[in-house]
Parts: sequence; structure tokens; C-alpha cells
Amino acid sequence: MRPREIIEKKRDGRRLSGEEIGSFIEGVTDGRWADYQTTALLMAMFIRGLDGEEQKALTDAMLRSGEILDFSDLGAPTADKHSTGGVGDKTSLIIAPLVACCGVAVPMISGRGLGHTGGTLDKLESIPGYRVDLQTGEFRKIVERCGYAMSGQTAKIAPADKKLYALRDATATVSCIPLIVASIMSKKLAEGLDALVLDVKTGSGAFMREFENSKKLAAALVETGSSFGVKTEAVISDMNQPLGRFVGNALEVYECVKILRGETDPKMLPTLELSIELAARMLVLCAAADTLENSKSKIRNHLASGEALERFRRNIECQGGDAGVCDVPEKLLDKDLYKFEIRSETGGFLAEIDASAIGGAIVQIGGGRTKAGDAIDHAVGYACEKNIGDRIAEGEVLGILYSRNENQARQISEKLRNAYKITEEKTQNPELIKEII
Amino acid sequence: MRPREIIEKKRDGRRLSGEEIGSFIEGVTDGRWADYQTTALLMAMFIRGLDGEEQKALTDAMLRSGEILDFSDLGAPTADKHSTGGVGDKTSLIIAPLVACCGVAVPMISGRGLGHTGGTLDKLESIPGYRVDLQTGEFRKIVERCGYAMSGQTAKIAPADKKLYALRDATATVSCIPLIVASIMSKKLAEGLDALVLDVKTGSGAFMREFENSKKLAAALVETGSSFGVKTEAVISDMNQPLGRFVGNALEVYECVKILRGETDPKMLPTLELSIELAARMLVLCAAADTLENSKSKIRNHLASGEALERFRRNIECQGGDAGVCDVPEKLLDKDLYKFEIRSETGGFLAEIDASAIGGAIVQIGGGRTKAGDAIDHAVGYACEKNIGDRIAEGEVLGILYSRNENQARQISEKLRNAYKITEEKTQNPELIKEII
Repeated sequence: MRPREIIEKKRDGRRLSGEEIGSFIEGVTDGRWADYQTTALLMAMFIRGLDGEEQKALTDAMLRSGEILDFSDLGAPTADKHSTGGVGDKTSLIIAPLVACCGVAVPMISGRGLGHTGGTLDKLESIPGYRVDLQTGEFRKIVERCGYAMSGQTAKIAPADKKLYALRDATATVSCIPLIVASIMSKKLAEGLDALVLDVKTGSGAFMREFENSKKLAAALVETGSSFGVKTEAVISDMNQPLGRFVGNALEVYECVKILRGETDPKMLPTLELSIELAARMLVLCAAADTLENSKSKIRNHLASGEALERFRRNIECQGGDAGVCDVPEKLLDKDLYKFEIRSETGGFLAEIDASAIGGAIVQIGGGRTKAGDAIDHAVGYACEKNIGDRIAEGEVLGILYSRNENQARQISEKLRNAYKITEEKTQNPELIKEII
Repeated sequence: MRPREIIEKKRDGRRLSGEEIGSFIEGVTDGRWADYQTTALLMAMFIRGLDGEEQKALTDAMLRSGEILDFSDLGAPTADKHSTGGVGDKTSLIIAPLVACCGVAVPMISGRGLGHTGGTLDKLESIPGYRVDLQTGEFRKIVERCGYAMSGQTAKIAPADKKLYALRDATATVSCIPLIVASIMSKKLAEGLDALVLDVKTGSGAFMREFENSKKLAAALVETGSSFGVKTEAVISDMNQPLGRFVGNALEVYECVKILRGETDPKMLPTLELSIELAARMLVLCAAADTLENSKSKIRNHLASGEALERFRRNIECQGGDAGVCDVPEKLLDKDLYKFEIRSETGGFLAEIDASAIGGAIVQIGGGRTKAGDAIDHAVGYACEKNIGDRIAEGEVLGILYSRNENQARQISEKLRNAYKITEEKTQNPELIKEII
């Protein structure tokens, strides 16, 4: 099948057969399709769409472009969680040890941050020495030893996705549901899972701002996971404000360690709440707990007993990191940062936060990247001191910027302040969990 | 302006500004746009379309990506003709000397054949020694000396078009009116013309098979030419059967020499008729003749007097070719070819000819190319012995294939025979000139 004919078919809005989609993905993987042909087809797919069968065929072909892991000999069920990306979204670091404590293995393959949203791998690398470039054999051994492992996508896992994602990012074809679904699911299904919980973000800091679009994405993800025989559930969670207290790689790990140590402060509560919700659902899906309530109480016990923290410590040791951060979380924080308070110019109630503007401001001072491969500054970030619905006095601190120097602070302080909308009437703080699909 | 933002805008069906289109074409020319970004935008343009202003801006940017010739010091008006491509379409070789004889300079930049349609450069190269790779200085000198010159697009003329065309060809984005218009007009406007006549083909052997689409293309071409201050007219001509007698590079040049020698046989008449129509309009457009009828009679006189043949001979000499073909046109024909008669299996009237199938069959035995850069066999081709509307007896010869050997003949003879549809009722032979725009 010639690329031109396949492109032409989708260009004119016709259905592609499984064979045609397979031929496309094989061609992307082995280089028979030129990048400029691939992006032409991606744009045609973006505009014309893919139906359910095409989406499944695309996921399947991308999954089969690489290695599929198999943990069936572990003697434990396997589960994972995937988030569509948000600001301050750090639950993976808490969920993995919690679920592992309950006897469910978590072979978690994560990504890096891009644009206003962070990535688990970047966060983990704030821990001195922590390695995320595990090869398959090592990854498997760490799952066996710690109950969970966290690694980047190796060249062998869904290689077609890696290539497609880079091209989509450069050609404005990222925000397309069937392409998002195939990208996420081809990687997650390669983990050889029994169960998968998807955290689909919605709101000002999410890729899908509109609730209806988030719902569509959640439904497509669940449908695709189920069609591959994986028990799949999606939680649509609020991203109209950063999750928890901190935004920024090291600061977010700090928040996680504090939570695992049982030192959760009130601003960190949403992080804990969402982590427990997602972890509990993972356990129920793979029958490691009978009801959601039992699952949650089991998890809370492991947290309170310090077992989750010990699991986290063991994982850091296995992956070459400095486990001392478990004892002295402040080791994660850079003392030389220039702290700058963002203050409200008016009084009233906090009505809206543009979470993507906050994420974007931190990227601007090096805390994230605008294109793949950019180096980042793990230390910089932001502390959210107010939530939607809070009463705000004139001049009150809305948040604290952790920047390298005064110059950086000047650069983005206005952007941060403008991310807040204060009104006279009180707005309700949005529900964290919007819907389960 | 970043490529991604420009791509995103057109992806969502929004208008691009002249500045954005300019930035795109500059990026294509200097390499700042990656090919994979270019094809994503081309696909978005294909599906979403471009309005009149965008089309003009695209043409202008592509034109300005290279050198614009200026013949204002010649002391003669300049005119050219461009055909959208057909089967057996060889009028350029007759029109250029005819128009030059009437005191109008023709700086003709032509292309090569691709797919089922031929290209002027390939035809000219059937003349032993004829060079079509003229540099600008040489091209200008030959126009001065002979009244016309025929060359390929140099690297300096609309370089963006050359790059875009190759990418469009590989990504199924060729048949899109605004892209076709910008491609044709950026090259033609670079010739620094006073007048331009467009021969827009319609029917089974044309890129635009449907009359309505051909009409739209013609209107867009004329509108764009006029908006750049060039007197532009389009002739929509029939391409439901090959034009004239021969298809195939050397055979088509042979037909042209026969016509220029005044030895036009009845099957060649449509070639002569269309050549005179187009040439006459070129003269009227640049005020070298007052009415179309006067223009035609002037042209017929130059043909009858042998002046046009002498002009053709002078051009061949200037461009390094063997002018002996003007005296002995049979020198163009390869005597070793294997001739094979295509005969009708039934009797009746010839109702339809699939001209693109005939062009495609000749490509299959090497007479044309399926991708740019392929070598071709100039000698092979086809003689059309019957036209639409002709009465056909069972077993009568429909055409004669000029192939290299019996094996080639066997390969395509059925395809050629199937290109003909014979019915019991008589169909009218279609009008050659359908409409003037």
C-alpha cells in the first residue's frame, strides 16, 4: 500500500482499514514513510477524525510497533494510573507506593513535562541520583523487588508513538482525541496491565479545558482499554487550579514526601485525596479490594503505618537515588532561591485561577520545557496559598514564587498575578472529582 | 511567527494573513520550516481551503521566493501560454514560433511530464542535442535572437514552488485549486509577461475531469493573473480524448513538425486548431492584433509562408538541437519500434475514450514517469486513429501502439483497448473549445 493512496483516502474523509493503518504505523517505525508523509496523514486524521474501529486499529498497530511487557509470572496483579497532564499534578509518586503496599504491582512508564504541564520523570530526577532510564530487565527486577518501578519509555516500547508524538508536537496535531488515545493507550497497554485508571483532567490547566471534551476523551480511553481486555476506568478530575500546594519539580516531590510522612498540610489535602481515590480504584479494578470504601481504608492504613514511605524509600534505593530525602524532605529544596510573594491588588473572593498561566510562567523561568529535549531547572516553582472560593484581603499573599533571582521574579510576577480573578461574589471551590467513567 | 501557530490557524479553518503566508514561504525557501511542518500545513490548506486573498498572498510569496525576469527592454510585448496538462497536448511547440513570428516574445518556462500527462521539456528532448537547462542569461539571449526560448524552471525561478510541488506530489495534496493556482502563476508571473493565455483542460485525460472544477480553476487563474496586472485569459478545452494524432514524446514532436511544414493530416487538425486559437488570443491580449479573426489570419499566413517553421529551426539551432528534423521529420522516429494495432472487438460508434488510461499505458512502458526524476523512453507512444463519434466496424483499428517489443505490447494492449467505449448510438464528437474565461 502506497503512502499517497492512504493519505488521499483520509484526506477525503474516508475510513482507513486496519490493514492501511497497520501499513502506516509499520512505515513510520521502519522509516518507509517519510516524516513529511506522516505529518500530512496526521493532519488529515486531525481534521477528518477516526471512528472507533480506526482508533482501535491505530492503538493496536502502535502497541505492536514495539515490545509488550508481561508480568504474568509475578504472582501479583498489575495496575497503573495515567494522567492526561495538569499543573501541580504529582499523584503518581504517592499512588505507586500505596498500591504496591497492597500487593498490586505497578510497572509505571511515564513521560517528561512539555508546555505548561509537568512530567513524572522530571519530578523524580529532582531526587539526587534517581535514574529513570531503566532497561526492560532492570525495570522488571525493580518491580519484583519494590512492587513498583518508574521509568521512561524505552526505545523498545511503542517506538511509533515516540516518533509520532514529536511530529505531532511540531505540527499542531496534538490535541486530537483519537491520536491522544492511541498515544496513551499504546504505551500503557505495552505494560501488560490487568487494570488501568485514567485521571482525565478538565479545566484551565488541562489540555482539554472543556468538560464535554474531557468526557469524550475519558470515554474513548476507557472504550479502547476495555477492548484490549484491560479493566479500565477514568476519573475526570478538576484542573481549574493547580493540584495541592506546590508547582515545580523538586517542590512537588517535597509535597509528596511530606504526605507520605503523614505531614500533609491543609493546602496539600487535594493531592492526598486524589491520590487515594485513584489508588483505591486501581485496587478494586484488579480485585485486590472488594469495595471502594474498603480499598480506601486499606490504603489509609498503609499510609498511617509508614509502610508507604518505606516502599518509596526502597524504590529510591533501587533506582539509585538519595533516600535521605525520606528523612529530611528539606534536602529537596534549594536554599538559595529568591522567594517572591504574589499579592492580590484587590479584596474579594478568589473566583478563577488560570492554572495553565501559572504552569507557563514556571516554564518561562526554566521549570519546564517548551520543546522536547530542553534542559530544565528542577528547583524553581510556585506555592499556591489560596484556592478558588477563598476570601482574599487587599494585599494578601496569593502565592509564593521560588525563582533563581529577582530578575526572574520581575519577568513573570505580573503573569502570575494576572492568573487570579477576584470577584465580589463568592464562587464555590470546585469539586475535585467530577465524574467516573 | 512560529510554524506551529500558523499550522494551527489553518487547521482550525481560520484565514491566514499575508504576513503569515509570507513567513511560511520564506521558511520553506530558507529551510526554517521542516518538510514535515510544510506538508502538515499543505494538508490543512487542502482540506480547509484558501480564500481569494490568501491565494493571492500565496502566489505573491512564491513568486517573490525567487528571481523575476524583466523583458521590458526588448522593445516587444511578451506573452506565454500554459496548459494544465493533458494527453497528446503538444501545442507549445507550435504556438511559440507562431507568436514569435508576429513580433511577440515568448519566454516559455515549462515542466516535465508526471503521471499520465506529458511535459514540454521531455518532448523537446526528443530532438537530438536540444538543451532545456538554460541559465537566465542564455535564456534571455535566445528570446532576443529567436523571439522565443524554451527552458526548464531554473533553481532561481520560484524555488519555493519546486520544493512545495515535490512535497505535494508525495502527500496527495496536488489536486487543490488554490495550490495549483499559486504553483502555476508563481512560475508564469516570474517570466515578466504582458499577457498569459491558460489552456485549462477538462475531461477524461485532464487533472480536473469535471467541467465545473475546470471552470473554477480557470476563473481562479484568470483572477490571480489579472490581480498581478497581467492580461490573462483562460480557454477551457476538451480533454476527453488525446489531442491530435500522437501521444508520446518523439511522436508528438513529429506531429508538430508535420504541422509546421504544412503537412497536417486530418487526425492532427485538432492540434492545429487549438494552437491557432491560443496563439491568436495571446496576440490580441498584448495588442499585437486587433480582433481574434485578424489575429488568426495573420497566424495562418506565417504558417503557410513557412516562416513559423524557420523560427522553429532557428530556435532548435540556438538551443543546440539537430535542426535537420525540420527537413526530415522522420528522423525523430525510431525505426526499430514494435508496432501493434489496437482493434475494436465490436462494431458501433466510439462513445468515450479514457484518455488518462492511454497516457497511463504509455507511462507504463517508459514513455512517461510515475515519479519525478525517472528516466523515460522518448520513442514509445501511441497513434490515435479514431475519435469520439466515429463509426467503428468490428475488428477495425482504433489506434497503433509504438512499443519497444512484443512483450511491452502484450503488457498494455488490453488497457488500451479497454480505454475505448463503443455504443450502438452515435455520440457527438465533443467541441474542442468549451468556454473562454
